[in-house]
Amino acid sequence: MATFSDIGLAAGINIITALIFLIAFAILRLQPINDRVYFPKWYLKGLRSSPTHSGAFVTKFVNMDWRSYIRFLNWVPDALKMPEPELIDHAGLDSAVYLRIYLLGLKIFVPVALLAWAILVPVNWTNNTLAASKATDRLQYSDIDKLSISNIAHGSPRFWTHIVMAYAFTFWTCYTLRKEYATVAAMRLHFLASERRRPDQFSVLVRNVPPDNDETVTESVEHFFLVNHPDTYLTHQVVINANKLAKLVKEKKSKQNWLDYYQIKYSRNQSTRPVAKTGFLGLCGEKVDAIDYQTAEIERLSKEIAEERERVKTDPKCIMPAAFVSFKTRWGAAVCAQTQQSRNPTLWLTEWASEPRDVYWDNLAIPYVSLSIRRLIIAVAFFFLTFFFIIPVTIVQSFANVEGIERRAPFLRPIIEVSFIKSLIQGVLPGIALKIFLIVLPSILMMMSKVEGYLSISSLERRSAMRYYIFNFINVFLVSVVAGTALEQLDSFLKMSANQIPEIIGVAIPMKATFFITYVMVDGWAGVAGEILRIKPLVIFHLKNFFLVKTEKDREAAMDPGSIGFNTGEPQIQLYFLLGLVYAVVTPIFLPFILVFFALAYVVFRHQIINVYNQEYESAAAFWPSVHGRIISALIFSQLVLMGLMSTKGNARFTPILIVLPVLTIFFHRFCKGRYEPAFVRYPLQEAMMKDTLERAREPNLNLKGYLQDAYVHPVFKNDDDDDYEDDFNGKSDDNVLVPTKRQSRRNTPAPSKMSGASSPSLPDVVPEEL
Amino acid sequence: MATFSDIGLAAGINIITALIFLIAFAILRLQPINDRVYFPKWYLKGLRSSPTHSGAFVTKFVNMDWRSYIRFLNWVPDALKMPEPELIDHAGLDSAVYLRIYLLGLKIFVPVALLAWAILVPVNWTNNTLAASKATDRLQYSDIDKLSISNIAHGSPRFWTHIVMAYAFTFWTCYTLRKEYATVAAMRLHFLASERRRPDQFSVLVRNVPPDNDETVTESVEHFFLVNHPDTYLTHQVVINANKLAKLVKEKKSKQNWLDYYQIKYSRNQSTRPVAKTGFLGLCGEKVDAIDYQTAEIERLSKEIAEERERVKTDPKCIMPAAFVSFKTRWGAAVCAQTQQSRNPTLWLTEWASEPRDVYWDNLAIPYVSLSIRRLIIAVAFFFLTFFFIIPVTIVQSFANVEGIERRAPFLRPIIEVSFIKSLIQGVLPGIALKIFLIVLPSILMMMSKVEGYLSISSLERRSAMRYYIFNFINVFLVSVVAGTALEQLDSFLKMSANQIPEIIGVAIPMKATFFITYVMVDGWAGVAGEILRIKPLVIFHLKNFFLVKTEKDREAAMDPGSIGFNTGEPQIQLYFLLGLVYAVVTPIFLPFILVFFALAYVVFRHQIINVYNQEYESAAAFWPSVHGRIISALIFSQLVLMGLMSTKGNARFTPILIVLPVLTIFFHRFCKGRYEPAFVRYPLQEAMMKDTLERAREPNLNLKGYLQDAYVHPVFKNDDDDDYEDDFNGKSDDNVLVPTKRQSRRNTPAPSKMSGASSPSLPDVVPEEL
Repeated sequence: MATFSDIGLAAGINIITALIFLIAFAILRLQPINDRVYFPKWYLKGLRSSPTHSGAFVTKFVNMDWRSYIRFLNWVPDALKMPEPELIDHAGLDSAVYLRIYLLGLKIFVPVALLAWAILVPVNWTNNTLAASKATDRLQYSDIDKLSISNIAHGSPRFWTHIVMAYAFTFWTCYTLRKEYATVAAMRLHFLASERRRPDQFSVLVRNVPPDNDETVTESVEHFFLVNHPDTYLTHQVVINANKLAKLVKEKKSKQNWLDYYQIKYSRNQSTRPVAKTGFLGLCGEKVDAIDYQTAEIERLSKEIAEERERVKTDPKCIMPAAFVSFKTRWGAAVCAQTQQSRNPTLWLTEWASEPRDVYWDNLAIPYVSLSIRRLIIAVAFFFLTFFFIIPVTIVQSFANVEGIERRAPFLRPIIEVSFIKSLIQGVLPGIALKIFLIVLPSILMMMSKVEGYLSISSLERRSAMRYYIFNFINVFLVSVVAGTALEQLDSFLKMSANQIPEIIGVAIPMKATFFITYVMVDGWAGVAGEILRIKPLVIFHLKNFFLVKTEKDREAAMDPGSIGFNTGEPQIQLYFLLGLVYAVVTPIFLPFILVFFALAYVVFRHQIINVYNQEYESAAAFWPSVHGRIISALIFSQLVLMGLMSTKGNARFTPILIVLPVLTIFFHRFCKGRYEPAFVRYPLQEAMMKDTLERAREPNLNLKGYLQDAYVHPVFKNDDDDDYEDDFNGKSDDNVLVPTKRQSRRNTPAPSKMSGASSPSLPDVVPEEL
Repeated sequence: MATFSDIGLAAGINIITALIFLIAFAILRLQPINDRVYFPKWYLKGLRSSPTHSGAFVTKFVNMDWRSYIRFLNWVPDALKMPEPELIDHAGLDSAVYLRIYLLGLKIFVPVALLAWAILVPVNWTNNTLAASKATDRLQYSDIDKLSISNIAHGSPRFWTHIVMAYAFTFWTCYTLRKEYATVAAMRLHFLASERRRPDQFSVLVRNVPPDNDETVTESVEHFFLVNHPDTYLTHQVVINANKLAKLVKEKKSKQNWLDYYQIKYSRNQSTRPVAKTGFLGLCGEKVDAIDYQTAEIERLSKEIAEERERVKTDPKCIMPAAFVSFKTRWGAAVCAQTQQSRNPTLWLTEWASEPRDVYWDNLAIPYVSLSIRRLIIAVAFFFLTFFFIIPVTIVQSFANVEGIERRAPFLRPIIEVSFIKSLIQGVLPGIALKIFLIVLPSILMMMSKVEGYLSISSLERRSAMRYYIFNFINVFLVSVVAGTALEQLDSFLKMSANQIPEIIGVAIPMKATFFITYVMVDGWAGVAGEILRIKPLVIFHLKNFFLVKTEKDREAAMDPGSIGFNTGEPQIQLYFLLGLVYAVVTPIFLPFILVFFALAYVVFRHQIINVYNQEYESAAAFWPSVHGRIISALIFSQLVLMGLMSTKGNARFTPILIVLPVLTIFFHRFCKGRYEPAFVRYPLQEAMMKDTLERAREPNLNLKGYLQDAYVHPVFKNDDDDDYEDDFNGKSDDNVLVPTKRQSRRNTPAPSKMSGASSPSLPDVVPEEL
């Protein structure tokens, strides 16, 4: 049982840690040498260039201007200053709406916290049940518990306050959620409507084109859509399996980089030609002249690539039964995406094409039956992962003890037997296995989603986020609340009755308040402050810069802006929503800690989104329905837990009053689903028609076919020679150019495709991330 | 514990009852006087006319031809003879597919029964566990139990047979279900494709038209669709709230009937003009000249109707914010029905228009928010109905005892005190309250669906069927298996753990086998045989014929063909599927009884569908996904119950093997849902385009607008004066006229609307059932 001073101490430590991180960040970000770590977004947008090209040598690396240190906390108002529309323009709607999740946390929990402190805390505090039971049962309790529901006597009429508060919190949460859903839906529709022309507005992905003995896939697609969408069909692009080609292109790029490196080396020191070994990692094998060798290799690869490119284009095996079909109007695309095409609903499946850079190319050709089997397998696998992951971890831990290592590697014995090292191994090793698993987990979940066959990176991330949330809920939340592994709990829950489970959890919840307060401070406060420091990218960038960077291009590659990481970030926020909602009625003292998290995270992530992260794709906030749904499920869970707790604390009359809450919440969820979700799934014809009409009036002679022809060409056909032009490709740059730049960085910024460049030079296009 | 002889006796009684019914039917149907009771379908199709207009007086009522009695079982081959395509033509796809449910029962359970009797019965029989435990525990058991799983010793390896059989049965059921789903989906698509032109193919119902201050609803609709579907929009028909008008028209009809009656009376006996009283039911009030009075009344009503008709057409309050929008092509309608129209997904809601006669007019103007609240209320109400219905029934029963009646109505005391009457009241009254409730139940459920706001009669019936099935499952099946009311069970299940519930049910299942065998014989065998006898319609028809029939038209009205009654019939079949699947592994002796039911019911209902029932609407087998889904849920339930049983009988190793079954079944369900369900929900564009193209080639000068203009006029505007013409209106009659007829009966057969008649006299139309 923690006391106020315990909590105060923990809070102090974590506040100091967070402050150290923030101060370190404030100082580090001012150093020019770190500029690419803390402002990569501006580099990528081409609005900032390396500060190394001017000034004295020292100022290249260290900021000598003392005045800038005085304003070291300036980044906070800077981060908050940018208005939302500009933020959407700068970082995309996904990022802007992602920030609104934190804001939503504040909107929900600030009034809830105020109300809870104004009403619940006095009601709990002015009781002396715990003091009384201490006297009789020698029960240990702390001041924290005095503020919680534990301090109310069994069956006390004071519980009515909690019931009323539970209603108030539920209504407030639902009200806020509804408002937010409406706002985000409106933002999405506005974004889609006010957006510039984009290929995905006109395009539909059609999959499972049935094989035809007399026609190739491309003929088949053309005929089908000419017949069934005669007025709107424009053109199409068959999906090609170019994975091998992509590999070759990647290899060539690496060789090209080496060639550049050796050439720079040679130009600096003309006396000796650089020499390299041909074997593994350049460590062994025959010694050859590096420049000649790399040149020869590049030539060989270029030839192979040309051959493979020919083969891919002509070999029917490389042509997948899928195509991106483009229409003359947005209306036509909207119609085709929302309707069923063929009698057999597993053929000619149409859906909105994702943005070209959002397409996950590898999954485009999975047949229908295989898809359902894959989902089954992954569902089973995820079940086992969630409940049985602890088994392999334990096995690894049992091997990874001192005796095990000694048995396997006797020559290490003298080192291990040193007592300091021995205790280190014994203390750290078991934890490492678990930690490694937890670090790898998001990648495992991502891989699962990939196997399931989702077609866009955004949907892969949404799916992984859902799984990660479930995993967290079971293996972090439930395991912390009810002791024992997830598997043991599953077993005991199966043996418990339906009304016992909420009781068990409900009774355990108030007792775990201090644990979760500490968790919020460590994971939430210090973790978020650590996020802004970007220690890992900072170290990696400098290491790369020191050891590996050979060319300017490499320096750009070394700069890793990262992205929001929806699949890991959102489940974390959701855990806080869950904790906040569960503890709002039970232990109101919890709420300020959550509020600090949401406020801090909001500022930090706003800063990161403005200055650092580079979103890989734009899904126009397609993730909001899942965010909304998870908050709703957390709300329902909190209501059930409260019911369980009440049934042990109060008397039975509370149950019927409380059961109304989940029913109403489910109803509210269904209402929201019907009212707002379509905005995230479908595209209203009215909108499409409006944009079409406007466009026709503005640009009557638009060559749309030229624009769309190659929008969905596999990235490998576009990117391998994009060094050739430096012309105007940035669609948005004309709106918000702040500084004239060299524009060396173009990772992820739009560029016209090589093939369609001639026919529509003025039309912007979007290119997937470079391979 | 029933023995073979008990079961045999019960079987004998029920077989004899069923045989009596069948023989009575075979004789009654041959009597000309009953012709309209047993062959109404042919009258309604106009292919049969009253046999009373020729021959001797006696032969009008009694069939004197002894040879026809010899062939009294002829109806069976007759019923089976009609091939399915002809049946579809004759009675519609709904009826034909409804029969396939019985056939599906046979397809599933014949091989299951054979396999179970070949393998499971010997395995169970050759054990002597029960005999052994009888010796030790004095356990009572019967021969039936010797054939069931109860006869296997605890933990015996023989249970492997049951596991393997459970797998085999599951796979066979799923295989059959999949094949059937594919067949029905193909039948539906074929039916929709080969159908004649129908208004609903071109029409879409749009609801929640937003109010506009500057435009009327009709202008608003026209503008919206002219803008957003410019190439395909043709015309529309605003929905009018004509409930009052419909009431007036109905009143006028009744008066018209009375007038006819009095005129006939007067023409037979010219001496006295008929006299009637104006008061309640013609029993009290002023005496007036009947013919004059009715003529005056009719005139008054005609005037009122004319006024109301004017008012309805002009009063904006009568115009609902909904409309039937028709398109130039099926493609256009398919597009509009499947897409979202407006930015706000609760406005401009579009969906396929039902067939005009399937439309449930009263629900067309419910706004979106109200809809979700209605669903919530009904969901809660249904929960209470299911679990608490027993409470009011008990209260009524407690009032309806002898003392209660005596207290309330002391003047009845002398009668009640007669001991025979007293015991009758005491024996029958309590049962009557429950029986009345059960008879009224389908109407209550139907009313619930109506309140929920479904828009077509077919969907109302589907929804009611779902509810009725749940009610039956809980209050018939579960209550019979586990003793106690549904409410008590809910309470005890809530207190039980998740793995205890299947155990409780699983253990009780084999013990209830004899009860359910009796249930199948009474409800299934005798009930179905009773169905063909049509006792209620027979009695009512003759009563009406004798007392009420005044005109030929009345005789037609007295003839009540009824319809399949999907909302009550299908849940009953589903109960048999559930019983069959649950008992297949546990008590294989159950299966033959189910088989007899399915076979008998198939023949009986095939006969009824051909000769009696007159389907009110045609939904093209839209109910199949629910049928499929309920069989799947019964299958999963049976697997869970088997798991529960095994966990008490065998040992734990069976659980993981058995848990695979529900997982696979759910996967199978999801596969089927994705693969076949779209055929029942959406209309593929390919099909639409094909039909459009064909039609354009065949009838290039078709006046579609004239055809569609008034297809969706409220029935009251069409029917009140349809006596006026007798011209060619029967769309299908040119294909399958067998006998030239008078065509007096036209209930439910297509007729052109009065208003559009001029512009397209040759185009068939469909009219809702007469009011």
